[in-house]
Amino acid sequence: MSATDAIAAEPQRTLESDKARRIVDAMRVSVAVRGAAGSTFDHVAREAGVSRGLLHYYFGTKERLLVEVVRRDCDIRIAGLAAQLQDAHTADDFIDGLVRGLSELVEGDSDLVTLMYELFTLSRRNDEIAGALADLCQKMRGHLAESLAEKREEGVLRLGAEPDAVAGVLLALADGLALRFLTEPKLDPRPTVTAAVAAARTLIADPA
Amino acid sequence: MSATDAIAAEPQRTLESDKARRIVDAMRVSVAVRGAAGSTFDHVAREAGVSRGLLHYYFGTKERLLVEVVRRDCDIRIAGLAAQLQDAHTADDFIDGLVRGLSELVEGDSDLVTLMYELFTLSRRNDEIAGALADLCQKMRGHLAESLAEKREEGVLRLGAEPDAVAGVLLALADGLALRFLTEPKLDPRPTVTAAVAAARTLIADPA
Repeated sequence: MSATDAIAAEPQRTLESDKARRIVDAMRVSVAVRGAAGSTFDHVAREAGVSRGLLHYYFGTKERLLVEVVRRDCDIRIAGLAAQLQDAHTADDFIDGLVRGLSELVEGDSDLVTLMYELFTLSRRNDEIAGALADLCQKMRGHLAESLAEKREEGVLRLGAEPDAVAGVLLALADGLALRFLTEPKLDPRPTVTAAVAAARTLIADPA
Repeated sequence: MSATDAIAAEPQRTLESDKARRIVDAMRVSVAVRGAAGSTFDHVAREAGVSRGLLHYYFGTKERLLVEVVRRDCDIRIAGLAAQLQDAHTADDFIDGLVRGLSELVEGDSDLVTLMYELFTLSRRNDEIAGALADLCQKMRGHLAESLAEKREEGVLRLGAEPDAVAGVLLALADGLALRFLTEPKLDPRPTVTAAVAAARTLIADPA
């Protein structure tokens, strides 16, 4: 059983309930506004319209609730990426999909980026979160590597390295660029994105 | 006057003192152990062996002290990078220097990475920190872009894009890879680094 499974074992039994979903949503909003350290079970219970006891029953600790928020966001991000890449017929299609995903992340969903980094800093001091975050990152990389391998099998793409390494570089590049563009909002992202695409093209090409 | 200058205007007058340096060092250690939220002026004053009042006198707020810690670390990282790149005679030398810098960051100085991300999450809720962090990131990118431009002038390197865009991609890649390797400590970094180097080589080549 992976660390994410272990952490999520209790909530997963009941998470489909409307209340559990409201709790996760309220935590997401609270962290964006107050940060993880400032988000207490009291705040979240009030904003989700549930009792503090119910929150404890579902999630036990704040760390588990945070992991659950990020797990859901990652699932949504993975599903979005998969849908974008599904219809890629050329290397350019594939890369365009990745660039679109990056731009949506920076412009539309910067809370997710902040939350990921908040969880990362917490993971440096908490083994349970570290294990869960490692699983989430590995899962996301694994999904992208799978998409890449499929497209290679279909003869749509040629890869410059093994799918897993290519996926690792593409995700690192996306993470690093998202961080940079959010940190330097006055920077025109276009020349950097163009250069990043040129670099990524070494790893993803049309078949010979 | 940039935001970093504004934030650092008061402390910079006195920061050369041994006590101020001890405060910054104590804050660095405290954040690594307790996180930024858990690091109070009381902790840091005690561990630096100074009065709480002196800490206030030098830095005013915890946010300013955090920025000062990261500013110092960035200066050290910039100086290290500059020294490594100084003697590069080929594109491979240059890239080897960058890879060495990344590996030192992940293996030897992961606290700096954590601190940068902690500051990033704080910057999302605090305009003063956001301004200072933007200045720090821009400064680091500017220094790397300058090194690249110099090497291009000397005929050592050919660049695949403007120096500033190349620097942005290289730093994003390094940030993203550092995050990934720290998050997934069981992942063998070598295949991903090899693929990243192949991608970076599109942007940095030997002269034709």
